[in-house]
Amino acid sequence: MYPFSEGSYAVRNAWYVVAFSHEVTRSLMERWILNEPVVLYRREDGVAVAIAGRCPHRHFPLAAGSLQGDTLVCGYHGIAFNSDGRCVRIPTEGRTHSSFDIRKYPLVERWKWLWAWTGDPELADEALIPDHEAINLGRAESPSFPVSYHLVNGRYQLMHDNLLDLSHLAFLHSTKIGVEEVATTRDTVSSGPNWVRSMRLVEDAPSPPAIRERFGDAKLSQLIDFTFYAPALHVGLNRFELDVVTENESPTKVRLIDSIVFHAVTPATKHLTHYFFAVTHNIQDPSDLDNSKVKALALAVIEEDLRATELIERMLQGLDEKIRDRLTAGDTAVDKGRRILQSMMSAEARILNLSIPK
Amino acid sequence: MYPFSEGSYAVRNAWYVVAFSHEVTRSLMERWILNEPVVLYRREDGVAVAIAGRCPHRHFPLAAGSLQGDTLVCGYHGIAFNSDGRCVRIPTEGRTHSSFDIRKYPLVERWKWLWAWTGDPELADEALIPDHEAINLGRAESPSFPVSYHLVNGRYQLMHDNLLDLSHLAFLHSTKIGVEEVATTRDTVSSGPNWVRSMRLVEDAPSPPAIRERFGDAKLSQLIDFTFYAPALHVGLNRFELDVVTENESPTKVRLIDSIVFHAVTPATKHLTHYFFAVTHNIQDPSDLDNSKVKALALAVIEEDLRATELIERMLQGLDEKIRDRLTAGDTAVDKGRRILQSMMSAEARILNLSIPK
Amino acid sequence: MYPFSEGSYAVRNAWYVVAFSHEVTRSLMERWILNEPVVLYRREDGVAVAIAGRCPHRHFPLAAGSLQGDTLVCGYHGIAFNSDGRCVRIPTEGRTHSSFDIRKYPLVERWKWLWAWTGDPELADEALIPDHEAINLGRAESPSFPVSYHLVNGRYQLMHDNLLDLSHLAFLHSTKIGVEEVATTRDTVSSGPNWVRSMRLVEDAPSPPAIRERFGDAKLSQLIDFTFYAPALHVGLNRFELDVVTENESPTKVRLIDSIVFHAVTPATKHLTHYFFAVTHNIQDPSDLDNSKVKALALAVIEEDLRATELIERMLQGLDEKIRDRLTAGDTAVDKGRRILQSMMSAEARILNLSIPK
Repeated sequence: MYPFSEGSYAVRNAWYVVAFSHEVTRSLMERWILNEPVVLYRREDGVAVAIAGRCPHRHFPLAAGSLQGDTLVCGYHGIAFNSDGRCVRIPTEGRTHSSFDIRKYPLVERWKWLWAWTGDPELADEALIPDHEAINLGRAESPSFPVSYHLVNGRYQLMHDNLLDLSHLAFLHSTKIGVEEVATTRDTVSSGPNWVRSMRLVEDAPSPPAIRERFGDAKLSQLIDFTFYAPALHVGLNRFELDVVTENESPTKVRLIDSIVFHAVTPATKHLTHYFFAVTHNIQDPSDLDNSKVKALALAVIEEDLRATELIERMLQGLDEKIRDRLTAGDTAVDKGRRILQSMMSAEARILNLSIPK
Repeated sequence: MYPFSEGSYAVRNAWYVVAFSHEVTRSLMERWILNEPVVLYRREDGVAVAIAGRCPHRHFPLAAGSLQGDTLVCGYHGIAFNSDGRCVRIPTEGRTHSSFDIRKYPLVERWKWLWAWTGDPELADEALIPDHEAINLGRAESPSFPVSYHLVNGRYQLMHDNLLDLSHLAFLHSTKIGVEEVATTRDTVSSGPNWVRSMRLVEDAPSPPAIRERFGDAKLSQLIDFTFYAPALHVGLNRFELDVVTENESPTKVRLIDSIVFHAVTPATKHLTHYFFAVTHNIQDPSDLDNSKVKALALAVIEEDLRATELIERMLQGLDEKIRDRLTAGDTAVDKGRRILQSMMSAEARILNLSIPK
Repeated sequence: MYPFSEGSYAVRNAWYVVAFSHEVTRSLMERWILNEPVVLYRREDGVAVAIAGRCPHRHFPLAAGSLQGDTLVCGYHGIAFNSDGRCVRIPTEGRTHSSFDIRKYPLVERWKWLWAWTGDPELADEALIPDHEAINLGRAESPSFPVSYHLVNGRYQLMHDNLLDLSHLAFLHSTKIGVEEVATTRDTVSSGPNWVRSMRLVEDAPSPPAIRERFGDAKLSQLIDFTFYAPALHVGLNRFELDVVTENESPTKVRLIDSIVFHAVTPATKHLTHYFFAVTHNIQDPSDLDNSKVKALALAVIEEDLRATELIERMLQGLDEKIRDRLTAGDTAVDKGRRILQSMMSAEARILNLSIPK
C-alpha cells in the first residue's frame, strides 16, 4: 500500500514498541499490531507477556476473557492458554490439542517500555533492538520520561515521513518550535543497511516562538540530529544554544535546551498506528524541564503532527489509490527510509515465497 | 462468507420469523431480510402482509410511503401497490404494468409472531414451519411470552454457533446461569435432514449464581435439551431439579425451573441479524416466573450473547477474510448445524444454476 | 456507476457551480469536485480562484495551509503556489520545479455564484455556461436570490432524477406544494444535444396546501416549465394563476406566484453532491415574496427532496450493485437527461482512450 509497492504493508521480522511498561498490568489489554490482535498482561511474577489476541476456536477476543493465575481463559467457552500461548484446557474435552496453541510474541521489557517481535520467533534476536544505553534512553546520568501514547488515525508510514523530513518544523510547527531557517538549511544524510540519520546545524537563527517566550528574543544555534532505526524507532537530538559574548573573553555557548526525543512508531492496522513518545533531558535542571509547561508544549506539537497525518490519511482514502507523491531535496532521508523499509519487506516476501512448496 | 463457502450467504427457501405480531400495525415498518428490504403492515381486516420494501421505479423505500386502505403508495412518485404486491397505479400513466409488480412474501401469523418465506413462493409450504403445538409454543396449558427483539451487529451464523454450543453457559454466563459442569458434561447430539438436537443432563452440580440467589445453595440436576430447526429456530428446554430426600421416603425431584426458550434467528443483512426471544413456562406459578426479575435475568444473559457476537463480528471484519476456526468436542452440534445449512445453500445454488438458460 | 454504465462517473469537460460568491473569501475553503479536492479563495484584488486542494509533495490538504498575499503556502512543509497553481517555492530547495505545479481550474464569477471548469482547460469556453441573462438570473428587472447550499448524502444523478420527473411534487411534496393533477398531466418534453425541457400546464386544479394557506381555496392554473442544462443546472418556471371572472368583462388571469428556480447540481464525490438553490421572482412585490415564510417553504420542500435522495442512496448502497430501475411515462425527461449525460461521458472516455499511446 502507499507509499510502498502493492502487497507491501509492514516489516514483520522486527522489534516494535507495543506498550509503555506502566500500561501492562494484571488486567488484560488488547492492542492490534501489524493488523493482528495481541493481548498483553503481566504474569504473577511481574513478567510481561504478549500472545495472540484471538481464540482459535471461535475468534472471541482473548482480552475479553480473564486471568486465572498466569493462565488466560477465553471468556466465551473457557478454552485456556498459558503465558507461552500453549492451550492448557479445552473444557468440553478431557485433553488439549496443540492445534489450539496460539502465537506467543517474543517480548522484551527494556527501560520503561516493551518491545515485541512480530516475525518468525526463531529470528528474534534481542541484539536487534536499538541499544538503549547508546541512544541515551534510561541511563543513570540523565532522566528519561515516557511522555505519551497515541493511537493515530493514519497509516504508519505517514509518521515516518513526518519524522524523516524535519523541514516541516518551520511550517507545521511555526507558531511553536519552528523557524524558516530549519527548512532552508539542507540536512546531511547518512545511512546504513537499517538506519538513516539526518543532521542539520542551524546557526544564528531567530528563536522560535516557544523558546522566545521562555528565554527572550535572541539569535540561537540549533542542532537537529535525528536517526531512524528502521522499522520502529526515531531518536532525535534537539539542542538550542545561545552564543554569549562577554568582555575580554572568547565567546561561549550556553545550552538552553538539550534533549533527546524518542518516537516509536508501530503499525496497528492498515490505517491505524501506535505512537509512543519519550524524552531524555541532557541538561542539569530536570525539575525545570520536566515541568508541565514543557510537556504541554511537546503535546501541542505532537497534536499538530497527528492532525497532519490524519488529514493526509483522509485525503489518501478519498483519492484514487494509485497516487504517487513527489520528493524534494528535503526528502533525502524520507526516500532513504522508505527504500530501507521496502527492501526489508521485499526480502521478507521473497523468503515467504521460497518457503511455500510448489 | 465465513463460516460457509464463498458465495454462500443464507438459505432462501425457508420460513423465518420476521416480526412479533405486536410489532406489525397499520404503520408501515421496514425490516431487511436476507439482504433485501421488506415492508410489513396490516391490512384493514387485520391480516399482516409483507411485500418488497423498494419501489422498482426509483428505489425509494416503500416504508417511507403511506397506506390508503390496503394500498401502499410510494412516497416519491405515488406508484401504488396492493397487499399482494401488484402495482395498481402509476400516476403518470393511465394504466399499470405488471413489470412494476413487486414481490409478495408468503406470511403466516402463528402464535404471537410472523413467519415469512424468503424463497420461491411456489415452494412455500406452511407445513415446513416448526409445529408450534409440538414445540410447546402458545399451547393453552402453559403460558408463552414474547420476551424481546434485538437487531444484532453480527452475521447470523454467530448466533447459531452460540446456541449450538451451550458449553458457553459455563463461561460467558458464569456470573448468572452457568456452572463448569455444563461444559464438562458431553452433550448427546442427534440430527435429521434439517434439525440438530443437543441434549445433556448435568447431575449433582452446584447451583449457578442466579438459581442460588433465588432458591439457596444446593446440588441440582439440570437438563439442557436444545433443538435447532434449520435454518431459523432454536427450541430449548431448561430444567432445574432439586433432589429432595426425606425420612422414610424414596427421594423425589422438585422442579425449580422448567422452561422452554425460543430463539428465532433471521439474517437481516450480511452483517446484521434479527433475533427474537420467547419463553414458555411449564410449571404452575407463572405469576412468579414471568416476573420482572426473571425477565431481567434473561435479558442480561442475552446481552452477554449479543456482546460476544458483536466482538467476534468486529474481529472477523478486522482480520484477513480467509480465516477458519477450529472445532472442539463441544462443537458436534455446531458442525452438524453448519453442514445442514451449507448443504441447503449448495442445493439451492445448484437449482439456481440449472434454471439459468445457457 | 448506477444509473450509468460501468466506469462512467461524471462529465468532466463542463462548467459546474462550485460556490456562491459570498462563500469564497480570503479564508481558504476546501470543496471536493468530481472526486478531487479543490481549494477556493479570493486574491487580494478580489478575484476568486480555484486550484487543486492537495499538495503534490505529501498530499497535505492545501486548504489547511495559509495565504501570504495571493500565494497559498502548504501548512506542512511550506511549499507555495500562486493563484495560477504554479509552484513558487520549495523551501528545502533554492528553486522550484514545474513538476510541483498544480491544477488551476478555470473559474468564472457570474451573478452571485462561481462556475468552475473541471475538464481540459484548453476546452474551457465561457460561452458554454448557460446564458444568465437568457435564463433570468441576475437581471436588473427582477430580483434574484441565492437561497441555500446543501451537501447532499447521495450521488448527483439522484438529484437530476428528482428534478427531471416533477410528478414527484404530487406525492413527495403533497403537504406543501403538490397536487395530484401535476402527476396526471403528461409533460411535453423537448431536447437538444445538451438540454432537456419538460413543460406542463395544469389547468383548473385545486390549490396546493401552501398556496391555499396563503391565497385561500380556489381553482388555479399552474405552469411548470423546467429545463436541464446538462450537466450542471436546472432552471424552472413555476407560475400559479387565478382565473378571475367579473361581470361584463372577459375573464382575466391574476398571477399569484411567478418565480424561476435554479438548481445547480455538482458531483462532489462518488456519493456526495453539492446542491445550490436560487430564485428569481418575476412579480412586482419582492418584499412579499422574499419574506421568511416563502424561504421557509422552499427550504422545507428541499429538505423533502434531500431526504428522498438520501433514502435512495442508502438503499442503493445496501443493495446488490447491478440493480436497474424502471421508467414510467413520467420519465421521458429523466431518460433523455440520462442519455445526454451518458453520451457526454462516453464521448470523453473515447477521447481519453485515443489520447493514451499504445
